[in-house]
Amino acid sequence: MKQRILNVQQWLSTNHLDLAFISSSENVFYLSGFLCEPHERLLGIFVFSSGDPFLVCPTMEVSQAKEAGWDFSIVSYTDHQDPWELIRLKMSEKEINSPTKMAIEKEFLTYKRTEEISAIFNEVSISSIDEKMNELRVIKSEEELTILRKAAYFADLGIKIGQDALKENITELEVIASIEYELKKQGIREMSFSTLVLFGEKSGQPHGNPGNRKLRKGDFVLFDLGVVYQGYCSDISRTVVFDEANDQQKKIYDTVYKAQLEALNVCKPGAKIGDIDRAARKFIGNAGFGELFPHRIGHGLGLNVHEFPSLNESNLDVLKEGMVFTVEPGIYDEQLGGVRIEDDVVITANGNELLTKSSKEFQVIKK
Amino acid sequence: MKQRILNVQQWLSTNHLDLAFISSSENVFYLSGFLCEPHERLLGIFVFSSGDPFLVCPTMEVSQAKEAGWDFSIVSYTDHQDPWELIRLKMSEKEINSPTKMAIEKEFLTYKRTEEISAIFNEVSISSIDEKMNELRVIKSEEELTILRKAAYFADLGIKIGQDALKENITELEVIASIEYELKKQGIREMSFSTLVLFGEKSGQPHGNPGNRKLRKGDFVLFDLGVVYQGYCSDISRTVVFDEANDQQKKIYDTVYKAQLEALNVCKPGAKIGDIDRAARKFIGNAGFGELFPHRIGHGLGLNVHEFPSLNESNLDVLKEGMVFTVEPGIYDEQLGGVRIEDDVVITANGNELLTKSSKEFQVIKK
Repeated sequence: MKQRILNVQQWLSTNHLDLAFISSSENVFYLSGFLCEPHERLLGIFVFSSGDPFLVCPTMEVSQAKEAGWDFSIVSYTDHQDPWELIRLKMSEKEINSPTKMAIEKEFLTYKRTEEISAIFNEVSISSIDEKMNELRVIKSEEELTILRKAAYFADLGIKIGQDALKENITELEVIASIEYELKKQGIREMSFSTLVLFGEKSGQPHGNPGNRKLRKGDFVLFDLGVVYQGYCSDISRTVVFDEANDQQKKIYDTVYKAQLEALNVCKPGAKIGDIDRAARKFIGNAGFGELFPHRIGHGLGLNVHEFPSLNESNLDVLKEGMVFTVEPGIYDEQLGGVRIEDDVVITANGNELLTKSSKEFQVIKK
Repeated sequence: MKQRILNVQQWLSTNHLDLAFISSSENVFYLSGFLCEPHERLLGIFVFSSGDPFLVCPTMEVSQAKEAGWDFSIVSYTDHQDPWELIRLKMSEKEINSPTKMAIEKEFLTYKRTEEISAIFNEVSISSIDEKMNELRVIKSEEELTILRKAAYFADLGIKIGQDALKENITELEVIASIEYELKKQGIREMSFSTLVLFGEKSGQPHGNPGNRKLRKGDFVLFDLGVVYQGYCSDISRTVVFDEANDQQKKIYDTVYKAQLEALNVCKPGAKIGDIDRAARKFIGNAGFGELFPHRIGHGLGLNVHEFPSLNESNLDVLKEGMVFTVEPGIYDEQLGGVRIEDDVVITANGNELLTKSSKEFQVIKK
């Protein structure tokens, strides 16, 4: 963790900046090992180009911050105190230039908090640390990969539990209940997003809302789920047919399946990110379903379930070893329903490795 | 819904503002009935002092926005398009003053998005619509109260399921699994926050993390949970003792119980919000536990599980009929564990009504 703070300090020095304020839960965790969801309360780390950083958090979180290994100082506040007053006091110990050059997470920090923090200093200029944090986080260490593999293992388990739970007339929410129940019993406290199980025509909406729709013979069943494991996320989609499939379902499935293989073939060091999307989109377009694939091929994965980089066709950045992201083409027909196949992928020295391992063979589940 | 947009338009006119950009999921839902979690994608409603508003959302959400009843125009974008370009185009149809006077949710909108939106106009001044949205949302209509009562009913049910699940050696996560499983089977898709079940010394941390701690005789068991029902949140805490209680546990429980009654006695129209906190804090202080009550007495409740107003002792605002909030004193002893009792409360014409109804009698659960 200390090396990570040093990286930020070095970046501040190189860019002639005085300090950075890091306040998203994920980046605070990345820099400190302290995982905290402060809701509307203020949480953050002030990092200075030289000298020790300090953490700001609610008083009732202090013991957990220390337990997590934070051994620099902490400015803590109760619900009856104004944290900015305490920060101002702490800040007065530091010798900070005026005008102050400050970096914030522009893509996270609210306008209000930026105003509040700016008011501490006489004169302040604001720049963005988002790209730097993305750059630090985008390459996963072996230690992070070990955790991500475990997160993916539990996502695979979720798919298995969900497929096992299918039976005629069960509802989408009942299947979700089974998946999350069994995962919690395995020690998973949190899903990485609201689990999707969609039946039949409902799977035809990329972000449909699960409800009391009952499972009928011939339905597509689309699963999209992930867990949070030691702060890291997984994200998997699988689609099966219940009881009996028709030819059009097979054709759509086969198209998505092969489009994903095309996309995965692109995934190796040096390839352009946009080409992953393009490979799948071309295949789906050639099969005549181009209009029915409305979203990008994937997104970065790590402490956030959606993080840098975005895998869209206009992304010209290049893949590097250690990047982790999803590859998830889909075809969505409003009547017949939709198919999405999604894996978590890490770029290796020579190609890629799938973290998620659930079968992608066309499956008709009979009960 | 249309009346709510008119309210915003009227406020814009009164304050000589040209437009507002509303982009938090909750306020978009409040103004449109369209409930959408866009993750990092852009979602929002532009409201103008005169003329029709328009919605910005991802293309794949358009059908759901229409289904939810949005019948003004929509600017939609795919993952390969820059939404700001499309907004700029749409905006050019409007006759907007220069310099443009714009209101945003300063407490929600990121610095980056504020920069992006500002770039649309030649010259722009930014003010906050947060207070106005709080003012609109803080008084709940009868229709909203009906939904909040139902949300509270499911929170009560969660407590019952959790208490029924207790047995020696069960883990905290297993109890959570049971609660969420049964609630999902009842049609609840989402909890309003990550469910807390804490045993023994772990309940002594106001925001402890549930894990594989096993239930032992003599443990406090602290439940804190809530559901999202039709967009609205509930939030309840109850504490029981497993198998056998000692005198200190009884004393702590009794103190929290009576402190909550003191606080609830304050809850009627015209009372100062700060006095609710003060009443409980005074009682707990007099009992000698003042140091062990580190958080405010409660928070507003509605579309967000924590919303305006904050019930801290320095809040001088006055209670009005239709306000809904939590009242949740607690005492946390790091060794023995903690007790929190929390209800959802609505201010009525003459006093208050509890939306949550689970028993608050001191309970020792034997199995």
